[in-house]
Amino acid sequence: MLDGMDANARNEELMAQQEAYRAFQAQNLKLNMARGKPAAAQTDLSRPLLDVLGHDADLAASDGTDCGNYGCLEGIPEARALMGTMLDADPADVIVGGGSSLNLMYDALARHWMFGAHTESGTTAPWSTLDEVKWLCPVPGYDRHFTLLEAFGITMVTMEQDENGPVFDDRIRELVANDPTVKGIWCVPQYSNPTGITYSDEVVAYLASMTCAAEDFRIFWDNAYSVHHLYDDEGKRDHVADIGRACDKAGHPHRFVKFASTSKVTFPGAGISGLASSPENIDWIKARMNAQTIGADKLNQLRHARFLPTPEALDAHMRKHARIIEPKFACVLRILREELDGWGCSWNEPNGGYFICYTGPAGTAKRTVQLAKEGGVVLTQAGATHPHGNDPDDAVIRIAPTLPPLDELEQAMRVFACCAKMAILQR
Amino acid sequence: MLDGMDANARNEELMAQQEAYRAFQAQNLKLNMARGKPAAAQTDLSRPLLDVLGHDADLAASDGTDCGNYGCLEGIPEARALMGTMLDADPADVIVGGGSSLNLMYDALARHWMFGAHTESGTTAPWSTLDEVKWLCPVPGYDRHFTLLEAFGITMVTMEQDENGPVFDDRIRELVANDPTVKGIWCVPQYSNPTGITYSDEVVAYLASMTCAAEDFRIFWDNAYSVHHLYDDEGKRDHVADIGRACDKAGHPHRFVKFASTSKVTFPGAGISGLASSPENIDWIKARMNAQTIGADKLNQLRHARFLPTPEALDAHMRKHARIIEPKFACVLRILREELDGWGCSWNEPNGGYFICYTGPAGTAKRTVQLAKEGGVVLTQAGATHPHGNDPDDAVIRIAPTLPPLDELEQAMRVFACCAKMAILQR
Repeated sequence: MLDGMDANARNEELMAQQEAYRAFQAQNLKLNMARGKPAAAQTDLSRPLLDVLGHDADLAASDGTDCGNYGCLEGIPEARALMGTMLDADPADVIVGGGSSLNLMYDALARHWMFGAHTESGTTAPWSTLDEVKWLCPVPGYDRHFTLLEAFGITMVTMEQDENGPVFDDRIRELVANDPTVKGIWCVPQYSNPTGITYSDEVVAYLASMTCAAEDFRIFWDNAYSVHHLYDDEGKRDHVADIGRACDKAGHPHRFVKFASTSKVTFPGAGISGLASSPENIDWIKARMNAQTIGADKLNQLRHARFLPTPEALDAHMRKHARIIEPKFACVLRILREELDGWGCSWNEPNGGYFICYTGPAGTAKRTVQLAKEGGVVLTQAGATHPHGNDPDDAVIRIAPTLPPLDELEQAMRVFACCAKMAILQR
Repeated sequence: MLDGMDANARNEELMAQQEAYRAFQAQNLKLNMARGKPAAAQTDLSRPLLDVLGHDADLAASDGTDCGNYGCLEGIPEARALMGTMLDADPADVIVGGGSSLNLMYDALARHWMFGAHTESGTTAPWSTLDEVKWLCPVPGYDRHFTLLEAFGITMVTMEQDENGPVFDDRIRELVANDPTVKGIWCVPQYSNPTGITYSDEVVAYLASMTCAAEDFRIFWDNAYSVHHLYDDEGKRDHVADIGRACDKAGHPHRFVKFASTSKVTFPGAGISGLASSPENIDWIKARMNAQTIGADKLNQLRHARFLPTPEALDAHMRKHARIIEPKFACVLRILREELDGWGCSWNEPNGGYFICYTGPAGTAKRTVQLAKEGGVVLTQAGATHPHGNDPDDAVIRIAPTLPPLDELEQAMRVFACCAKMAILQR
């Protein structure tokens, strides 16, 4: 407990941690908790997927489409149904994409950038023609979301996020209501990256109904972890309210675009993805997609849809993932409690998703990550949870428990705790 | 022979054709020669591809990359090698894409539109910031190329194409040399869509060396049919000179981007694609792709690379395609000769690719296509070979022989010939 220590005790503790650290260094560890990457044991769960379509398979989709030939821009019916389950959307409002939902988000933003956006009163001006475009970024958030905006030179407006979702204080409310260059917001609404929180019904309703100066304001709803529960018990599962129905009810039916993928369901980067929006937005998008692509790989769509033919099959598959990763989350949380209780740190205990978000005392995150690196443990870059890699408090570290085997994870967390303590004591 | 007929003979011939046409109509035919789509017998050639990666497969690429997990933006080494063969490029200069090379072309154009283009003197202004962007379109050409430019509002400058490739007359030379808003040209350099011609070495050298007012002028080299020969005999195979080496030699190393896909090698839309350019362009593209995507499906890359592990394996596979489609090309050509010699029409006899390009007397193409449709034979829309669907001579019809079975193709061509004659006689 840091709290009760006087200067002498702190000094002794620092020396003890430094000795422990040197012992870790002597082991030449090479451990990695940097990325939200499934373990080999998890991707192995989907190896049966590889047998679904053999040489003698029927390659016809349920509507007769030959999945081994041209056609079907929006995806085959059964793949739209699978992504509809993940997106909480009517399959008719779903477009199926390739292995990268990031690509769907980039394309969505690029379309608005180049061609404007669909609204009740027609297509708006291309966002590239505006002097400035602003975007709301709840923090801590997902680094790739920020990188995407950075590529377009979009001004990122950070806003707080609490256990209920993004916090719309007066500053943000007034900005959105009065500044037509504020064009959208990033949301990871369930098991958020990295804080693990799920938006409350009130926050979802507020997002849908809030007054926006920009008629073409867009909620980019990256529901990456919609079926990624850690627990079988329904009481320990989060379910975010659907932004689509909320927007419809609020009279802003075109305000949202939802995204998801099977990257953390089957094979990262070799799965399928999906986008859902209002029927009119989907038509608008398809009209532009027609010049862009012949559509996403239908054989992989068919493979996935036959492997996960029902919501129940999908849930059963996700439970197998949970059995592998839940003990890893438990391990991280146990060591955080054992080592860092009373050290002025905090962390969340999520019911799903891929991350635990650690917040140390201000001014310790970079130093902790640096020490861990020199001790053989790679963590996500400090600052990555904020736009331009700049965490003004230098406090947040995203911990990704899924990739290392359990024994390595335990060791990596001991190193992490040791480094966190050194950084706190040396502050 | 139309040439020798007097008015009476023409009238009799028209009545005879009209009677034949009514007989065709009575058969309620439903035949399709509209799209360059492989026949089922062709896609069946690739069914063994579906067994390449089963549940117990080694999913590691040659460099150790786990193809079932995140990573590897540019593609795995063996897939870059396969696309390198198709693109006539060093694998190090190749980025692997998904099932749609159209998507690679769209992305390439969209990147220039939003972010400018790499040149020796740095990245140029985003093309979207210019008052106008022009693009050279050799005609007859590929409708999807034109649709892509249309989506961006790019001004299409049509130019002639002869048996050696695009014709740079004084008007075009001066335009390219003096107008910096002329930013590029579409090229289908081998077995061109639809004329089947292959660019001469002189044309390739000219493209690479010509004076361009735009420093960021781009040759979009859609080498869609690079390995799609109809004949085994090397003397009856075309091979276009490489635009990459030509540009390098001419001192314009960044002027070109090459595209290809396996859509007409394995499964259309479920294959892999590739883009090749100068090392500096590739670096520039990758830096921007990093914000866009996590990369193309590596399991499908691995599947394809193991199915077609060498240039020889690729050629052997393409010979199987040729054995299926060469008789179809021969059938179309035979019937054109039998029926339309001396009728003021012309057509090409390609050594590869997917199309035969028919040119009737001016003012007959639309009518021919319309009559054929009402006779139960769907042809490519007349005009599709020109920007905005506007063939000023109304003369060109693209014939796609690959999809129908041989007996249906013969019947469809008899209908076509009958309709062409009626259109000519009624003109």
